[in-house]
Amino acid sequence: MDYYQKGIELVKKNRGKFEVVSKVTVKDLEDLSVAYTPGVAGPTLKVKENPQLAYSYTIKGSFVPVVTDGSAVLGLGNIGPEAAMVVMEGKAILLKAFAEIDAIPLCLGTLDVDEIVRTIKILEPTFGGIFLEDISAPRCFEVEERLRQELSIPVFHDDQHGTAIATAAALWNALKVVKKSINEIRVVINGAGASGYETARLLMTMGVRYMVVCDTSGAIYLGRPGGMNKYKRRLAQATNPWKIKTLEEAMVGADVFIGLSGPGVLNEKMVRSMSKDPIIFAMSNPIPEIFPDEAKEYGAKVVGTGRSDFKNQVNNLLAFPGVMRGALDVRAKTINDEMKIAAAKAIAGYVRDSELDPDHVTPCALEKELAFVVARAVAKAARDSGVARAI
Amino acid sequence: MDYYQKGIELVKKNRGKFEVVSKVTVKDLEDLSVAYTPGVAGPTLKVKENPQLAYSYTIKGSFVPVVTDGSAVLGLGNIGPEAAMVVMEGKAILLKAFAEIDAIPLCLGTLDVDEIVRTIKILEPTFGGIFLEDISAPRCFEVEERLRQELSIPVFHDDQHGTAIATAAALWNALKVVKKSINEIRVVINGAGASGYETARLLMTMGVRYMVVCDTSGAIYLGRPGGMNKYKRRLAQATNPWKIKTLEEAMVGADVFIGLSGPGVLNEKMVRSMSKDPIIFAMSNPIPEIFPDEAKEYGAKVVGTGRSDFKNQVNNLLAFPGVMRGALDVRAKTINDEMKIAAAKAIAGYVRDSELDPDHVTPCALEKELAFVVARAVAKAARDSGVARAI
Repeated sequence: MDYYQKGIELVKKNRGKFEVVSKVTVKDLEDLSVAYTPGVAGPTLKVKENPQLAYSYTIKGSFVPVVTDGSAVLGLGNIGPEAAMVVMEGKAILLKAFAEIDAIPLCLGTLDVDEIVRTIKILEPTFGGIFLEDISAPRCFEVEERLRQELSIPVFHDDQHGTAIATAAALWNALKVVKKSINEIRVVINGAGASGYETARLLMTMGVRYMVVCDTSGAIYLGRPGGMNKYKRRLAQATNPWKIKTLEEAMVGADVFIGLSGPGVLNEKMVRSMSKDPIIFAMSNPIPEIFPDEAKEYGAKVVGTGRSDFKNQVNNLLAFPGVMRGALDVRAKTINDEMKIAAAKAIAGYVRDSELDPDHVTPCALEKELAFVVARAVAKAARDSGVARAI
Repeated sequence: MDYYQKGIELVKKNRGKFEVVSKVTVKDLEDLSVAYTPGVAGPTLKVKENPQLAYSYTIKGSFVPVVTDGSAVLGLGNIGPEAAMVVMEGKAILLKAFAEIDAIPLCLGTLDVDEIVRTIKILEPTFGGIFLEDISAPRCFEVEERLRQELSIPVFHDDQHGTAIATAAALWNALKVVKKSINEIRVVINGAGASGYETARLLMTMGVRYMVVCDTSGAIYLGRPGGMNKYKRRLAQATNPWKIKTLEEAMVGADVFIGLSGPGVLNEKMVRSMSKDPIIFAMSNPIPEIFPDEAKEYGAKVVGTGRSDFKNQVNNLLAFPGVMRGALDVRAKTINDEMKIAAAKAIAGYVRDSELDPDHVTPCALEKELAFVVARAVAKAARDSGVARAI
């Protein structure tokens, strides 16, 4: 594939995708005396008195590692930390380009949850926030949950929350287009990994009451005999009281299908069995659960995918730079649901009502202002919900 | 102090001393498709096949963390990881300015040796080398020793090795000035912390046979009743067979005094008791063990300090950028004694024989070419001693 070759040439030429650049010059003894010793002792003593000053006197407030164990990268599975470096560098430069975050890759040589948590906890003093990436489910849930408990800086697992927020934003606008209320729709999510679990959870927090989540063993329900884990049991407690068993069955009368699964799982019959004006987000990449033209042919009203070459791209990039930027701007202790919902609504609101139509429910992910609009909304939500340390 | 205020203003204005800068642009979908998905999969798959390609396809080969636990910073003691950030950023930009190393601070929220070692080990896949800084003795010895055993990338504790190499370089030239042989001199080292221990060890590796190391309890010798630890016992095994008890006694007839201790510990009587043409490196900072004019008045032939406002500055900066650069250039597995000695001799050799005199035994630490000259010597020594992975 041509892009693969271009990707190789790009990194070969540059030996990676970023560099560390000094903001101060050290050419003569005077420079050295200010930037290093003895001058460095001035700010050091101040921060020693008040560690919060690290946010003003060091890079901490915009310094964020993109941390992975390399276990679930690009749908390639467990490719190891060295290969994961390539992807984490790519993510890091997006954080810089879209939200002026000084992000670096940190690829860990362990798959052990305790060790991952402990390592990140030990690194906490250095960073303003933690970006988790491509850690396989269900380990990622435990890693994130424990870090959120133990750390007092924001932690964001993009595969979970980035996808969930971007999907929620797209759905928010799609519901306006089809004139349905979030409290009354029936939602089917196919995929119960990192993104499926969190998308389900966030949508319920935002008001969805009727939901079925499916995985490769079919619909998840309380007491399902196989293929369960702690997180699927949580989903089962909150969804599918009807004990629907299959995806096909779940699709009958559904208003919304959200695919975070694999290529081609939706067929004509399933789409035609949905409710009036169905909404389909088929986000499997690069081959969606159903192609947009097909879905429309079978009656779908709003169709989105993860791809940039179709209308309504539902892309994590809509969410992650702005969410972390907003959290850093107010030195938030955490990223809570209020902040995530604020982000989703800010992304949705970036599409003006006058522009809104079935083929335009998401903004373009490359809009340079978007992250800062999202950041402001996230920062406000952090302040309003009492997790901001700076204003 | 004025420099303290200048140091504060510098970091306040810049929010630290460095930033992360993308080497590639992501302005449109084409950029994104090459730098991120799908293009990123190309190099990722290559590195997955051969993890060593991370050196060509990612920043790894020039990416080095300056790691500390904040326990022994700037003579301020255990100031904590947040305050240590200020100093580690200063060190990081020196590595960039002098040796084009993409260095970042990593300040750890633990003082536990096992946790420090484990954390760095887990981070190994991300980095080309590890820079340790300002970890208190004797913990630093154990941290470094264990990392050297467990990691296959170079590890350099600057407080030990930077000082030892710079001192060895200065001594190498000073011996030429006073026309004495390294095998025959008597050396007294005052201070048995991180730098004292390693300076003693390196100088013996380079040929010094007669040595006494002193600490705050006096001279170290085998069987000394108090103030010993594992590392001081090692020193006792290799030095002071005469069982000299005090610094004063040790100075009688000594050819070289190396101070890595505290202000003003050398007096007139001690200097006058030394051998002919004595060499004194009084490197306590900012107040040396004896001031150069005094030392010269009492008979010292060559005097060096750690300060830039006297002749013969013995500065770590002479050593650390070039040593790490050389190790990275050949993807060395470790930094061995051959490489350290090569570095010391390259630094010494940077002063031409025609320029060599009692007031000029060290090059200026700000010489822009020095680090690359040192790097070439270190790289050659790595190849010759079989620890280089690339040529």
